[in-house]
Amino acid sequence: MRQLATNAVSCKGDPEERMANIKDIAAYCGVGVSTVSRVLNNHPDVSASTRAKVLDAASALHYVPNSSARDLAGNQADAIGLVVRGAENPFFTGVIRAIERSCAQAGLTMVLSQIRAGADEMAAAAGLALSKRLLGIIMLGGRYDYTREEALALGVPFVCCTFTNHFGDLDRAEFSSVSINDKAEAYCATKLLIEQGHERIAVLLDSVSDRSISERRYKGYCEALSDAGIPLDEGLVLETGDFTMEAAYRRCQQFLEERRDLTAIFAVADSMAIAAMKALSDAGLSVPQDCSIIAIDGIDMSLYTVPTLTTLAQPQATLGEEAVRILVEVLGGAAHAHVRLETTLRPGGTVGRAY
Amino acid sequence: MRQLATNAVSCKGDPEERMANIKDIAAYCGVGVSTVSRVLNNHPDVSASTRAKVLDAASALHYVPNSSARDLAGNQADAIGLVVRGAENPFFTGVIRAIERSCAQAGLTMVLSQIRAGADEMAAAAGLALSKRLLGIIMLGGRYDYTREEALALGVPFVCCTFTNHFGDLDRAEFSSVSINDKAEAYCATKLLIEQGHERIAVLLDSVSDRSISERRYKGYCEALSDAGIPLDEGLVLETGDFTMEAAYRRCQQFLEERRDLTAIFAVADSMAIAAMKALSDAGLSVPQDCSIIAIDGIDMSLYTVPTLTTLAQPQATLGEEAVRILVEVLGGAAHAHVRLETTLRPGGTVGRAY
Repeated sequence: MRQLATNAVSCKGDPEERMANIKDIAAYCGVGVSTVSRVLNNHPDVSASTRAKVLDAASALHYVPNSSARDLAGNQADAIGLVVRGAENPFFTGVIRAIERSCAQAGLTMVLSQIRAGADEMAAAAGLALSKRLLGIIMLGGRYDYTREEALALGVPFVCCTFTNHFGDLDRAEFSSVSINDKAEAYCATKLLIEQGHERIAVLLDSVSDRSISERRYKGYCEALSDAGIPLDEGLVLETGDFTMEAAYRRCQQFLEERRDLTAIFAVADSMAIAAMKALSDAGLSVPQDCSIIAIDGIDMSLYTVPTLTTLAQPQATLGEEAVRILVEVLGGAAHAHVRLETTLRPGGTVGRAY
Repeated sequence: MRQLATNAVSCKGDPEERMANIKDIAAYCGVGVSTVSRVLNNHPDVSASTRAKVLDAASALHYVPNSSARDLAGNQADAIGLVVRGAENPFFTGVIRAIERSCAQAGLTMVLSQIRAGADEMAAAAGLALSKRLLGIIMLGGRYDYTREEALALGVPFVCCTFTNHFGDLDRAEFSSVSINDKAEAYCATKLLIEQGHERIAVLLDSVSDRSISERRYKGYCEALSDAGIPLDEGLVLETGDFTMEAAYRRCQQFLEERRDLTAIFAVADSMAIAAMKALSDAGLSVPQDCSIIAIDGIDMSLYTVPTLTTLAQPQATLGEEAVRILVEVLGGAAHAHVRLETTLRPGGTVGRAY
């Protein structure tokens, strides 16, 4: 069922040109070095048109933030960074393993940095890239709204793994991505519940406006309801504030103390679904007799829940392998690419007919 | 309840002396270079006494395997390696996070290498140390029987994290470790079941002779039975061949098709216990009414099983933090150290009275 749709976009310049510095940009734009500096450091006192001109030039000239980074780039010809945002997510385990294995096969050293789910992965990646003299970065989990300034500050090519830049203004030619279509997959999961007669379907997610997977998957949930003529009940939108099992459990527990007129839950992650199953059980409700549940991810653990979790499994190994393959190609001079993968329905025992 | 018992041992020599080469060893021992080479490459045609003399000299002189490693040691003053054996083990997630965080705080780069559970971590570590010019290595999960030859081939200081070298001939002054007492903790887990009236207690483990945690924990299980006057029933020793949930599930499923006269299971890992709970459920048995279950680890996921898994929780963060702290101190010239941590009983709902 998986499909691989590579959408390659062109990327200007050859590797030699990447070594432009701030003076080159100033000369190219016909502005002063201090103006370029203000733009690159994101100061507010620059006009929009000058800002755009400088950013265009920095992009066209493949600007790298500082001279020490440029000087040293050649010294460590084999290291890339993997920045993992939300390391407690068990879904990432299989992806990290695939990335590490693919790096080893490609002769690359992988430097790992794990940051908490709410942290600024672009700042972490920029610091890592500079201090560890990395050739490139794979971001595993992250915001969907990177800016051009952030990409420039990073200074090395990067691949978004498991996500894209849906909400950002970054040109598709300036980064790569390997991801599923969050909105379409969430639509699919919600539709599977609707087809079983469910109408009072709760959604369990981080936040409806996290500029990341929750927001995208929430859109798919809303659209599936809308297409089926089911009005959105905001009381069934269960925001947890983060992706931990603890928060998911507490939110469900709190909800079930207030009302129990739901018949199904769509959880944006398997681990959150497992926590929800525990909350339902502790409240004396049976899955799927009293409440069905479906999720997206396909972690190993959800094969061993009772009953087995029904989930749309992401291709964990392929996500990791494709991220490394693309980064290696980009480092070799190829254009950035965007690969979209599909999930596979892994049927379990948590979805039944609506009562 | 946790205790921290540091058992520091002295370590000869200052950092300058670490740069001895194969000629220094030959001169020190009064033998030829080719003899030293044969010993260090583990060839059989060397007498036991010469072998011992060469290994003693290599150890005393802090021999580092090859000149390029020595020459380059100063170039990359901030990188250590983390070799994870059995990366699919969810228990390691919390430990890896702590190690990564502690490395960042200490200004160290962490280079990650994940290998499968059955792979040779010492060979992987030696290759990594040399090719990535690492200062030291943390081994996460591994055999308990390293030899002096393996330690010498590694060429950099190493810390065993979550295990020790119980079965090996390595001198305690030549490596560090942070671990629990596997045998004592397994004894404790089994005794908890016995105190609830259980006598027909199965043990679920990799192998009784894996020279690693299963073998040590099996010893604790046997000793607890013996101390309680319960004869060992070899039919209740469930070996899985690896630590995957899939193997644990299949072994339990196969066992339950043959006999059901057990009343409790001690699993050497939480993830294996969760797979066993699934197998019991699929066989129509209830936990703990039909069968109690207890494990060692304390992963997040076992807080969300139904019922909650009763387990002896290892201090995941402390294990990782201590491993980095010790390695940093050893790199700074301190002696190797051995830290023993204790588990904490995390009571759940999977242990009941024997029927």
